[in-house]
Amino acid sequence: MAKIKIAVVGYGNIGRYSIQAVKAAADMELVGVVRRKESLGKKDAFLEGIKVVADIDELGKVDAAILALPSREIPAAAQKLIEKGICTVDSFDIHGEEILKLYKALDAAGKKHKAAAIISAGWDPGTDSVIRTLLLAMAPKGLTYTNFGPGMSMGHSVVARSKKGVKDALSMTIPLGTGIHRRDVYVELEKGAKFADVEKAIKTDSYFAHDDTHVHEVACVNDLRDMGHGVLLERKGVSGDTQNQRFSFSMSINNPALTGQVLCACARAVVKQKPGCYSLPQIAPFDLVGGDVEDFLLHTV
Amino acid sequence: MAKIKIAVVGYGNIGRYSIQAVKAAADMELVGVVRRKESLGKKDAFLEGIKVVADIDELGKVDAAILALPSREIPAAAQKLIEKGICTVDSFDIHGEEILKLYKALDAAGKKHKAAAIISAGWDPGTDSVIRTLLLAMAPKGLTYTNFGPGMSMGHSVVARSKKGVKDALSMTIPLGTGIHRRDVYVELEKGAKFADVEKAIKTDSYFAHDDTHVHEVACVNDLRDMGHGVLLERKGVSGDTQNQRFSFSMSINNPALTGQVLCACARAVVKQKPGCYSLPQIAPFDLVGGDVEDFLLHTV
Repeated sequence: MAKIKIAVVGYGNIGRYSIQAVKAAADMELVGVVRRKESLGKKDAFLEGIKVVADIDELGKVDAAILALPSREIPAAAQKLIEKGICTVDSFDIHGEEILKLYKALDAAGKKHKAAAIISAGWDPGTDSVIRTLLLAMAPKGLTYTNFGPGMSMGHSVVARSKKGVKDALSMTIPLGTGIHRRDVYVELEKGAKFADVEKAIKTDSYFAHDDTHVHEVACVNDLRDMGHGVLLERKGVSGDTQNQRFSFSMSINNPALTGQVLCACARAVVKQKPGCYSLPQIAPFDLVGGDVEDFLLHTV
Repeated sequence: MAKIKIAVVGYGNIGRYSIQAVKAAADMELVGVVRRKESLGKKDAFLEGIKVVADIDELGKVDAAILALPSREIPAAAQKLIEKGICTVDSFDIHGEEILKLYKALDAAGKKHKAAAIISAGWDPGTDSVIRTLLLAMAPKGLTYTNFGPGMSMGHSVVARSKKGVKDALSMTIPLGTGIHRRDVYVELEKGAKFADVEKAIKTDSYFAHDDTHVHEVACVNDLRDMGHGVLLERKGVSGDTQNQRFSFSMSINNPALTGQVLCACARAVVKQKPGCYSLPQIAPFDLVGGDVEDFLLHTV
């Protein structure tokens, strides 16, 4: 069987872990990595033997592109690829209206250009969304709580780092239960910066103002960095007329490694979908793992 | 929007809970219940206001039939309905070759008669299968352990009850971890029966011989019956090259209530599928919950 030809677009953490996942998949061929032009010359042992280009057209036929880009860059990048007839998968992570906007744009483009896109396919949104949907089917009435962490929040870390007097910052998400979180922000100060000013600037930023936020000064933020993360998803609900049905899903994972793996699984699934756009719960889970259906029925179902 | 017309075929525990689930679903109409002819006359307050027939043709148009029947009766019953162009859902629970056989038969019949079937759609096989598939996508290398219970095993209870000298029996599945189970069998003896004989007959039956089985004599088995059950599904695996990714799913539920609810959700999904047969992981989870896709993207994803 022909291997699925995959391009990885972007080469940050998620890009690197996506490359590892694609290389580990027997049904896939990594045809190349797309980076910014100015990064092309950089030596990198990890990329040895991999074609690295600035323009995806240089890679020849690509079945699916894994967009390992910051969320804000994804809508334009996905649109461009879909217009070339290349299927895309991304882990766009801005919940709510932004997901809907991206969905509508890529659904229209996909139907026009005969390509499919799977959006917001990391772990939340992503695999957590699949679990939430399944639990809704199992107990349609009730409440689901999604508890994140403990783990690093990229977005909050960037905001904390942007404050005057901050040399480096790390924002941890600490689960307090029932969907409530505390934020512990660790800051390394510039020479002469006053901790009280930095603390106030962070606590009053709209990213932090709604949460119980604690700011701590440390000598070296980098010593605290760990890409471990996790979630505890809980639902208590009603099946038919039956109350108190209880469900719990939890995981403890390397965050970008899981995201890269989910993107890789979605690249396998996306080439099987009809043109248009899909969130992860709109994809049959079997399409994510592929393989022979008879073997699957015997050993996994 | 037109409601989905549902018939429930069979009226045991799962039938009753399926009826409750269908009644609670705003997008569904319970057109009737199909029972054995000899049961039609029986008075039953639960069935008040529901059309009860012996032949599904008496119900007029049916979009999907929920087969709440013993597993052994499902293949023939599903085949017959599919041949009428009625979609079916069932919770056929004999793992392995038997599922594959049913899949092949209904896939061929469905494609011929333009109807779809979702098979083995309870919780295991069923929603557990969806979780197992999702975890395979998240960490393709590794081991998954499925730990059942504590809860009543219907199949094992029936076998224990069939032994000479046994008036009533209940077989509990007790999880010992890493997919290993103990069986605690509670028996109520006929007058004059010897416990040692009953214990031996149960322990040497092929249903029990491979497990650590303990038989206990009790005065009244019925006092011990509880339809609560549960599962703990654990996976430790590799995402890309990253080891030690850990996942856990657990639930504590009323067993037939959950099965009835899952069957109901599948009845919603089955009418949207192309003709043919599907196991639950071959269905997009969103199809199980239905509703508006924009609303779904905003609030569940």
